[in-house]
Order: sequence, then C-alpha cells, then structure tokens
Amino acid sequence: MNLPVNGSFDGPGEGRNISDGWVIRVELTPPSLGDNTGDADRLLRALGRRLASDHVRLDLPLLRELPALIRSADYRLRAVVFREPGGWVVAGLTPGAAPGLVAGLALDLGTTRMAARLVDLESGAILAETALDNPQLEIGPDVLARIHHAATEGGLEQLNMLALEGVNYAIRKLCRSAGIAMDSILLAAVAGNTAMTHLFLGLDPRWIIREPYIPAANRPDPIRAGELGLAMHPMGRVFVFPNVGAYFGGDLIAGILYADLDRADRISMLVDVGTNAEVALGGGGWMVACAGAAGPALEGGVTRMGAMAGPGVIDRVAIDPLTRRFSIHTIGDEPARGICGSGLIDLAAQLFRAGMVDIRGRFLPETLGDRLRVMDETRHLIVVPAAESATGEDLTLSQIDMDSLIRSKAAMFTILETLSATVGLTPSDIERFYVAGTFGAFIDPESAISIGMIPDLDRDRFVSLGNSSLGGAVAALLSRDSVDRINAIRDGITYVELNVNQEFMNRFSAARFLPHTDPARFPSVSIPRR
Amino acid sequence: MNLPVNGSFDGPGEGRNISDGWVIRVELTPPSLGDNTGDADRLLRALGRRLASDHVRLDLPLLRELPALIRSADYRLRAVVFREPGGWVVAGLTPGAAPGLVAGLALDLGTTRMAARLVDLESGAILAETALDNPQLEIGPDVLARIHHAATEGGLEQLNMLALEGVNYAIRKLCRSAGIAMDSILLAAVAGNTAMTHLFLGLDPRWIIREPYIPAANRPDPIRAGELGLAMHPMGRVFVFPNVGAYFGGDLIAGILYADLDRADRISMLVDVGTNAEVALGGGGWMVACAGAAGPALEGGVTRMGAMAGPGVIDRVAIDPLTRRFSIHTIGDEPARGICGSGLIDLAAQLFRAGMVDIRGRFLPETLGDRLRVMDETRHLIVVPAAESATGEDLTLSQIDMDSLIRSKAAMFTILETLSATVGLTPSDIERFYVAGTFGAFIDPESAISIGMIPDLDRDRFVSLGNSSLGGAVAALLSRDSVDRINAIRDGITYVELNVNQEFMNRFSAARFLPHTDPARFPSVSIPRR
Repeated sequence: MNLPVNGSFDGPGEGRNISDGWVIRVELTPPSLGDNTGDADRLLRALGRRLASDHVRLDLPLLRELPALIRSADYRLRAVVFREPGGWVVAGLTPGAAPGLVAGLALDLGTTRMAARLVDLESGAILAETALDNPQLEIGPDVLARIHHAATEGGLEQLNMLALEGVNYAIRKLCRSAGIAMDSILLAAVAGNTAMTHLFLGLDPRWIIREPYIPAANRPDPIRAGELGLAMHPMGRVFVFPNVGAYFGGDLIAGILYADLDRADRISMLVDVGTNAEVALGGGGWMVACAGAAGPALEGGVTRMGAMAGPGVIDRVAIDPLTRRFSIHTIGDEPARGICGSGLIDLAAQLFRAGMVDIRGRFLPETLGDRLRVMDETRHLIVVPAAESATGEDLTLSQIDMDSLIRSKAAMFTILETLSATVGLTPSDIERFYVAGTFGAFIDPESAISIGMIPDLDRDRFVSLGNSSLGGAVAALLSRDSVDRINAIRDGITYVELNVNQEFMNRFSAARFLPHTDPARFPSVSIPRR
Repeated sequence: MNLPVNGSFDGPGEGRNISDGWVIRVELTPPSLGDNTGDADRLLRALGRRLASDHVRLDLPLLRELPALIRSADYRLRAVVFREPGGWVVAGLTPGAAPGLVAGLALDLGTTRMAARLVDLESGAILAETALDNPQLEIGPDVLARIHHAATEGGLEQLNMLALEGVNYAIRKLCRSAGIAMDSILLAAVAGNTAMTHLFLGLDPRWIIREPYIPAANRPDPIRAGELGLAMHPMGRVFVFPNVGAYFGGDLIAGILYADLDRADRISMLVDVGTNAEVALGGGGWMVACAGAAGPALEGGVTRMGAMAGPGVIDRVAIDPLTRRFSIHTIGDEPARGICGSGLIDLAAQLFRAGMVDIRGRFLPETLGDRLRVMDETRHLIVVPAAESATGEDLTLSQIDMDSLIRSKAAMFTILETLSATVGLTPSDIERFYVAGTFGAFIDPESAISIGMIPDLDRDRFVSLGNSSLGGAVAALLSRDSVDRINAIRDGITYVELNVNQEFMNRFSAARFLPHTDPARFPSVSIPRR
C-alpha cells in the first residue's frame, strides 16, 4: 500500500505565477519636476503599496546599485522582498525585463542527512533537488556529540564550517543541475532541529542541553546570506525556521506548515518519527505538541541487522500465514544486508499475523522451526540465511531486538495517546494522521496498526508527507504570508512536557502488547489464535 | 551684540541620565524550566516592552555573542537600540555593570568643513568636539565640481574614501581626546546636504544635478557602521538625515530639529546662509521651506579681499559717523588679511550709517577722501592700507564688490519675503528668527537689518543657533523619538520652488536699496541725509 502524498505545497508548477509570493514586479512612474522623489523612496513606495505596508527597508549595497539599475531598466523592476519584524526588506533587485529566474533554496538540515530543493520563486516550479550526508557526521553521529564538540576550542567554528560546506556543496550541485548562477538564489529557507540550526548559524548550543534548556534564539531574524557564508547572492535573505525550545525544532514547525495543521478544521495529528517522536495535534484554532523518546528501534537503529534505508536493505516483508514462507523485499532488489524501520515493522506485524510470535512478541518455537536458533543464550530468528544474504552471514532478529521494537512502538503509541489526552481526546478521534519523514514514506500503516504502534483509524485518514521539513521550507519560499504564519504557529503551539508519571507508565505497560492489552482499541486487527 | 545661543538640545549634561534615549538598561528574569524562552527572545521581549513594540531585531553578529554575554552579565544588560522602519534594531550590547560609557558621534558633513561631536548616549554629556576641512576639497571646492568628478572612472569611490578618511580622522581625534575606545561608539548621526550625504554613502550623485533632480534616496535606512567603513563599532548604526530633494538637504532638516521648528507655536523662521540661503518657516503644525541662491557675497566669497573666518580676518567694523574713523577688528587681533561675511555686512552697514555710501550702495567720494581710489576703471575703498595689512597690500572693497553684496542681501530678503508670502505672511510677522551657521554666529543683526538683509524685527526675536546641523545631529543621538520626528519633519514640510517670476523680480528690485525702497519696512533704521 502506498500512501497518498500531500501535494498542497509542491508549488503551482511550471508556467503559472504565484500572486502572493516574495517576488514583486513593479513599474514605477518615472520622476518628473512635479514628483522628484528619490530613487529608493520611489521603489519602496511602490513596493509598500503592494505589501500594504509603510515599512520596507533597502540595504546600502542594493541602494548603491539602484540609480543605474532603475534607469537602465526603464523603471521596471523585479524585486524580491522578505518579511522582517514590523516590515519588509528588499533581498534583491533585477531589471524587470531581465532574462532568467530568481530562485529560492529550501533546506532540510537533518542531523544525518541534508536535503535541498531549488525553486523558481515566481512560478513555484521545482528546479532541482539533492540530498547528502551531513558533513558533521565526521564529528559525531548525533546532536549530543556535536554539542559537546562545539564546547571545545574551535569546535563550534569547525561544526559551523562543516554545515556550510555541505550546504554550499548542495547549492553548487543544484545550480549546475538547474543551469542557473548561484547569485540567482535570493532567498533560502532552512528547517532543522534546534541544535542543527544553532550549529548552522554559528550559535553556541551548549545551553540547549543543560537545564533549563535554553536556545540562543527561538526566532532568529532573517540574515543576509553573505554574512552566513552561503554560496548564494550575498544580499539574499536566509530564513531559519523558529523553534519552540530545545526539543521542538524548526523542522517540526516546517512540517506543521507543510501539513497545514494550523489551518486544519478537522482533528489532525502530525507524527515525525526519528530517535525522537515529535508529534503535533491540532484542529480548528488550537495546537498542542510534544516530543519524546520513542526509541531508535523504529529507525532500525538498534537491531543488529538494523540499517538506514539503502540498496540491499529490507524494506518490506510478507509472511504467508498458511505456508509461513517469508517474502523479503530489498531496496533495489539486491541481496539483503540489513533491515530498515519499515521493514522491521512489517516483519513484526507479519510474524504476529502468522501466529509466529505471541501478543508479547515472544517467538513461538513450534511455528518457527529451523528459523529459530539460540545464540549467546538468546533466541534469534533467521530472517535471511547466510546463503542468500549480501554479507554471507545470517541476518537475524533476536528476541532482545524484538522486545526493543515492542518497547519503542509502545512508547510511540503512549505518546500519541498522552498528547491526545491533554486535549480530552483519544487516538481514535484523529481524523487526519500525517506521517512525516522517510519513515512515513516507507511505512505500511497496515503493519504499524497491526503491532499497535499507531491508532487503528480508517486507512484513508493516513497521509504520508515525505520530507515535511523540506516541504515546509519550500512552502516558506512560495508565499509571502508564510513567515507570519510560521510565527503564529510557533507562538500558538502549546508544548506539552511529557511527564513520565504513573499514568504514562500505565499507558505504556498496556501498550506493550500486540497490538494492545485492550484489543478493542484495534478492531481491524485480527488476533491470531494460538 | 552677541546673540543668545539656543541651548535646548545641548543635552542634559554630565551626571544626569536621559530617560528616553537610545540606551536601555534591562534586567532580565533568568530562564527556568517554567520559562525556557531563548536568550535573544528574552532580551528582545524585555526591550520591546520598554519600546512599546513587538518588533525589535537583533543581527547575527550580536546574536552570536549573546549566550555568553547574557550569562556573564548575570542577565543585566545595557542595550543600544535604534529606530528602523516599522520597528527597532539592537545596535550594541554590553554587560549592565560594564565600566565605561557608550558614545554617539554627531557629524555635520559640510562641503567645506566637517564638524563632529562625541556625546555620552546615556547622560547626553558632550565628550569632545572637533572640526576639519573636508578632505574632498582637494577634488573641488564645491558640490558641482565633485559631482562631476564622481562621474569619472573611480571618482565616486575616491570621493567616498576622502569623506571617510576625514570622518575617521575626526573619530580618532575625538576618542583620544575623550579617552574612549572607538568601538564604544555605537551610534552616529550624520547631517549634510544632499550631495555630501550621497558621497558619504557612496551613492551616485549624478542625477541630483540633472533635471528632474533626483536623489538616489531621500531617506536612507540606518546602516551598519562596518558596512560604511566608519571607525566605530562595526555593528553600530549610522543614521543619515533624510533630504527633501536635491536642494534641500539633511543639514537643514537637522537645523529644523535643533531649532524645534516643528514644535514651534509661534511663527518661526530658520535661515541657514551659505552660497545658498536655505530657509524654513513654520509655527503650529505647518512648515514651508525653500532654498535659493543668495550669492556667495554673504560668505565673503566674491570680494577680492573676501576670506573664510580665521586668524587675521576682519569680522567686525565700526565707523565713527562724526570722525569717519574706521575701527577694524580681526579674529585673533592679528594684522588684517581679508574680510569675512559678517565683517562685510558690518562694513556696508557702517558705511551707510556714516553716509559714505548712498541708498544704492554707491561710494560717495566727498565723504571717503583718501580711502577712495580708482583702479582698473573701478572705484575701490581702501579698508586697511598696505602699511597695516598682513599682506603688505591695500585691502580694498571695490564698487563691484559692493554691488554684489547688495544683490546678495536683496536676494536674501526677497527669498524671506517670498517664502513668507506663500503662507500669507510678511517678514514682520516673524516672531522667532533663527540664524544658523557660522554666519549666524558672527553676524550682527543690527548691521544685517541696517542694510535690509533681514527683517527689522525686535532684536530679541533673533536667535543664533551656531552650527544647527551639528546641533541637530546631537539631538538625534539623545532622544529615541528623534527619528520619528525627523521623518515627520521631512514628510510634513512643503518645499516651495522659488520661481524667479515677475513678482519675485519686483521684490528683488525693491530690495536693492539700503535698506529698501520702502524705508517704512525698516523703521528702526535711520536713513542718513546726504
């Protein structure tokens, strides 16, 4: 089953023009003895009229070019503006009749991967897309290692430089691919978690991880690209999505924007699954959110055979309930070398459906036969035998891995349940369930529901967003009301601290079954009889 | 007679603190688990509360320093803010308990001379003052020569560099004198005519002198000092006074601010005399202004013996009406080497009062005796004989010089009369007459009235402002409502184009007598009988 992909923000596409975008074409009335307003004031007055604002700023470097530009362009200009507190700033100017486009860079600054998209700011068309490993991986795999490194001599500068190198590499690649000059890029929108955006901006992140967990900034003001060292037009503006706090980053705000959660009139939940599960719930004027450790099992991170999605990685598993034969699918149909999160969830769901594990996830030897082996006093399920694997070794899932997966899925469901409870709802009330991230793109909701990880909703309530952080960054580039909307999201959201109290633990214990202690909550899941 | 000096904006002085200045001391509530707002947002929220605004910006370089600063300062900060369209920007931050002051630089960018004052932004105290020749004089003596030079290859850059060199020289001198570091200067306010501010900002001035006379900007936004190359804190803000057009510069706006003309409830006129006479008239919610060529004679510029004020220059002249003996005063009591504008006006007034020139300003040989000599077929009055002069030559005033002075004074009076007439007034309605500039500081109103250059008002209506452009720049540094006030002045003023039409010419012809064709307009001036 492939989930429908939310396309509301993929831009109006080639050929069409965005009427409320950041690009404004103005035709100025040329000066005369009766109207000898200065060049800049003439331009800003015209832009102000279009923006319904008296407050439009123009920086000196652009002002210096203006008198020649305005005359050579015969008073027809294409301006790129951006939103600032209380007003607007001009980020770039070209003659109105200039060939070529003005571009925007959308950037998802992931801890592990960076993804970038180049868009035409006028048409909304996507010009190119790329992704790369975050070069900061050489410092440390996770945010914590990097924050500690940032506290060492020169560490912050090094991490900042690595982030920039990655982004600038992506920009060069995108521009080559789209056939445009780098200084055609006049806006950038950057979404990342709080630590990543700090490292990107060169802000000391040390207070993020120390009580009371304080970011240097929740809402950085738009920055000139030249000041950051980004390989785009130096006067272009860089917008960094605001965070709600140390544990609720701009990437999730971007996701909320992308999912239109702030405009939802139905109860809608957005789940972004990583090492942390970040969850937002809203519908009609209110929004609550939380973040909690769902356990790396869902990313395939803890099992011995766990792997990030890539060639040879198992992403789908089917088990015939009658013959108990395994059908294993790998990415690229290559010999299996590991399993990713969605594959793991499929595997667990299929094992359960075929009656090969019990409701606690314990392997049932009588159904597993040869596939079960005891190593180091632990039961292992052989998923792919050595003869068929890429590694030449058995790919196995241990009982410990399975228990870890069940804790993770229980944590996830408990988080969703707890967040829903804060607004007096239960998970079954959710009318729209957005799953973000690569996880969301690959997961089979049928499987996730079978193991009780996500609520048992009508399947058409599920929407996979793909990279919602990147999607949100694109959305920010295509509408000039986006910044106000983003700020309203940030300010309007109620962040719920997940207290691991008795009630939470009771819910968690109840969720440590397949699919749940209370099967009535998962009516569509048939519990196999032993 | 020495005129009283307007002191309303000389600052509250040593020891007192300005409550509505640009410096704001804040004591922030330290963060806690219950209030984990980011550092920047915490600061900006506190500043916003004090500024009654939600829109305060913080630039990246200051943001990068903030986490360490805010903690080492124990959440007590001294912030310097500045006004921007729609909001405010932070120009500098120090720990609240930091020793030393934060300073502002007031700058009058004259075509010939630059004058600068350093002020304590918190107390308003003047720390140091200096003046120097505008280094652009090496390119050309007047604005026109420089604008032409700016159009040559590298010319604008050269002029911009010369202006900066001059200003930076002044800054170093002021800082040495005040014993402060240059990066303690966090704000600068710069007043100059439209051409000078263009050259200072590196803006192409060529369209200023071509019909329809368009400045690159009427109202440049505040600029980071580092971007301009000023030798102060690079993140400090530089405010350049707005202009109304090519011929009505920020220096006059600064003068209007300094004279409080926008707040006057009595009919008030401000006259700034140079090669151009710049005149503003207001009183109770309206303001009109004009600029016109009054002739360089008033600056002492055209007479052969004319000179800028300086040692050995004649600044006051008295003639005994009975003995017709000349009493000549020079600056520094040194041997005479020339005459400045105020000396020239004194001389003309005294000659007229002693009956040595007629009402057309023609030398009367029967009263001048030996002092009159014909050279090159022109009558010359020997003011200082060769034996007593510093040059070893006679210092003389020719009939041509005298005629030129009379044309200049007539032009001046006609301008005042014409501007008054646009609002249905005559010069005698003026209740407060502010004279700006060095001219205003030295001129004896008695003499100026005697020759009919300025209206015959009660002498206590005259106020000499001194360097009102510099005074206005200081005023801008000491009150944080000044920028809004300045913009309101700029936007509210009605600039009157002086059409040299028949009516103007009639007025001009009538004014070409001493004191006027109609002596009833100058009742206090006794007309000598021949």
